[in-house]
Amino acid sequence: MSLPALGYPNFSFEITARDGKTSARTGLLKTPHGAIETPNYIFCGTKATVKALSPAHLREAQTDIILSNTYHLMLQPGADLVEKMGGLHKFMQWDGPMLTDSGGFQVFSMGHGTCADEVKGRNKGHENKSLLEISEEGAVFRSYIDGAKIKLTPESSMEIQRQLGADLLMQFDECTAYHDTKDYTAKSMAMSMRWGDRCLSAFAEKDNGAQAVYGIVQGGVHRELREESAAYTKDRPFFGTAIGGCLGGTNEEMRGIIEWSAPFIHPERPVHFLGIGRIRDVFTFVRLGIDTFDCVIPTRLARHGMAYVRGTPGETINIKNARYRDDPEPLDESMGLAASKDFSKAYIHHLFKANEILGIQILAQHNVATFNRLMREVRQAIKDGSLDNLEKEWLAA
Amino acid sequence: MSLPALGYPNFSFEITARDGKTSARTGLLKTPHGAIETPNYIFCGTKATVKALSPAHLREAQTDIILSNTYHLMLQPGADLVEKMGGLHKFMQWDGPMLTDSGGFQVFSMGHGTCADEVKGRNKGHENKSLLEISEEGAVFRSYIDGAKIKLTPESSMEIQRQLGADLLMQFDECTAYHDTKDYTAKSMAMSMRWGDRCLSAFAEKDNGAQAVYGIVQGGVHRELREESAAYTKDRPFFGTAIGGCLGGTNEEMRGIIEWSAPFIHPERPVHFLGIGRIRDVFTFVRLGIDTFDCVIPTRLARHGMAYVRGTPGETINIKNARYRDDPEPLDESMGLAASKDFSKAYIHHLFKANEILGIQILAQHNVATFNRLMREVRQAIKDGSLDNLEKEWLAA
Repeated sequence: MSLPALGYPNFSFEITARDGKTSARTGLLKTPHGAIETPNYIFCGTKATVKALSPAHLREAQTDIILSNTYHLMLQPGADLVEKMGGLHKFMQWDGPMLTDSGGFQVFSMGHGTCADEVKGRNKGHENKSLLEISEEGAVFRSYIDGAKIKLTPESSMEIQRQLGADLLMQFDECTAYHDTKDYTAKSMAMSMRWGDRCLSAFAEKDNGAQAVYGIVQGGVHRELREESAAYTKDRPFFGTAIGGCLGGTNEEMRGIIEWSAPFIHPERPVHFLGIGRIRDVFTFVRLGIDTFDCVIPTRLARHGMAYVRGTPGETINIKNARYRDDPEPLDESMGLAASKDFSKAYIHHLFKANEILGIQILAQHNVATFNRLMREVRQAIKDGSLDNLEKEWLAA
Repeated sequence: MSLPALGYPNFSFEITARDGKTSARTGLLKTPHGAIETPNYIFCGTKATVKALSPAHLREAQTDIILSNTYHLMLQPGADLVEKMGGLHKFMQWDGPMLTDSGGFQVFSMGHGTCADEVKGRNKGHENKSLLEISEEGAVFRSYIDGAKIKLTPESSMEIQRQLGADLLMQFDECTAYHDTKDYTAKSMAMSMRWGDRCLSAFAEKDNGAQAVYGIVQGGVHRELREESAAYTKDRPFFGTAIGGCLGGTNEEMRGIIEWSAPFIHPERPVHFLGIGRIRDVFTFVRLGIDTFDCVIPTRLARHGMAYVRGTPGETINIKNARYRDDPEPLDESMGLAASKDFSKAYIHHLFKANEILGIQILAQHNVATFNRLMREVRQAIKDGSLDNLEKEWLAA
């Protein structure tokens, strides 16, 4: 298969500063819906909404970029409907940069389970049987909405992502699991490479300059596979590089995977780390050259009463804890946001005790704003060479 | 019992215009937290939050005044806690006028059921046994939180309302039900009058000018009882008059009750209609002299996917209806609010299908804004003598 020439004329990524001591770097990633500074955090708007937050809330929290999930949207409301409504930006009233994944992660993680529990979405027990078949052509799975059999292929994933209309797209890949053998992981990776080429061809056919596509590094926890996969993405006309798949069971394994991949990926393309994004992860992986993160935890943990607060050992406080029942202090007075500085912990504690939606809204917006602040400070610290100090301040370590 | 002299020096109610043809009137009701024009709508912030809306959301929707429920707050988080946190205004970050009810309605409606289903809150089956005893002293009931036995008396209701710190308070009364006999209703009404006097005495003891108390007209569906109860409230130093209790099973009965009471209540005090507030009710009852309404329906129906739209027969549309699946139009382009004019019906339909909280937020804010618009237009129409025309426009009747 001959690969298309893809210039991405409306996109660019420029490295603006380097830490010097590590691989940390700042950059400017331009898309047709605006530019973002990197490192940055991409918040999950799984079903065309960042849970409990409106676009206005997101802007108030100084959000630069969000993502939405192809898998969920193709099932409900459907890509045809989103396209008919003018695309995802218009549909959800978010006019900034946006990313969609390929759908592969959810299809496969619901089939056999993967390492990164955080991004599994609806992966709950009975739904693990939704994956029916994986073949060279693609994957067949059952809709969790109505049980219909649905086929997702590299070509259809790119077509659906075209219909959704996000700025940054992901190639379709098979996402392997921790328990998969090295042999299976290797064969899967080879297929994901062939799928990547098919994605590029399908993308090129309808490319109108509005979108750019990322290749994905697979290879599980195996060094030579990660190296091979990283080199593959470098050799192909992808706009960016994403690191996905099984990332190991420990922080050390996850770190190793990035360290193995880093020398082989394209040095001038933006690097996205799929589904990872605790505060400690941000500090660890910006030093290894990661430019963007995404994870559902800022809003998911908010729904469980967890607030990210700068300088908290363990990153979060649990607002449902009885100690906050009569705490008159706000979550974080040093934040500019009403959600963070106007309401007492006692009030938010009460809202959670009373099962009031407003409690979720307040924590979701606070958490998103806190991660955005983290990323602003990380960018400044990379420029200043003060990442170590900043990490101590954030993690109180 | 000698009644206290109560001047309410920081409160006033001035009638600013009259319709002429009916008893409709506009007024200016001043409280220490600001003035509101009447007729107006008091939105239910049952548990110290108007469900799914922040104070900023309420302001965006041009909300003037809200209420909170003594019954719910005394159980969770407790009046002592709210007082310790600086009172309800500070606790929930609402700095405008606020009303609290006496707790009586919930205590009694959970005991034996009443007419106005809309304001029953958690009144679901098994909780109907929560009322343990009614005596001259007060009522004993079980907490739905922890099963504890709790006594509420006229004195403790006023004390709790003082601790909560709203501007406008309600006397403690027994709320009778439709199935109660005339004899029971008469005896209950007489007791509510004695309770009213005890409320005034208790209120006067700690009165510091920050609050004002309403008497409540009881008497069920019986004309002479309503007249007697209305006359009672007029003769006592209440700041305002509320009409409560069983309001009958039909619109006609409800209308009759207000017509019977109206000639006997104090003509220069603000009149509040407890728990009533469909759009058609607003038009019916402003003509009978009602100044303020409250009802949970704007936000409760929002949670069920119902949007109030000006000019809709039946008042609401059900956004979950399949006809809105691909409707690119907003809820109401003529509104100034993002929630009303920026999102398509198709998007909100999708949010409800996907069980996304944002759908509830959008409809709740839209509905509150729509009722605030209704009240603004009603006030103007009273001044212009054009209520009939306005009613036709709103109800498409």
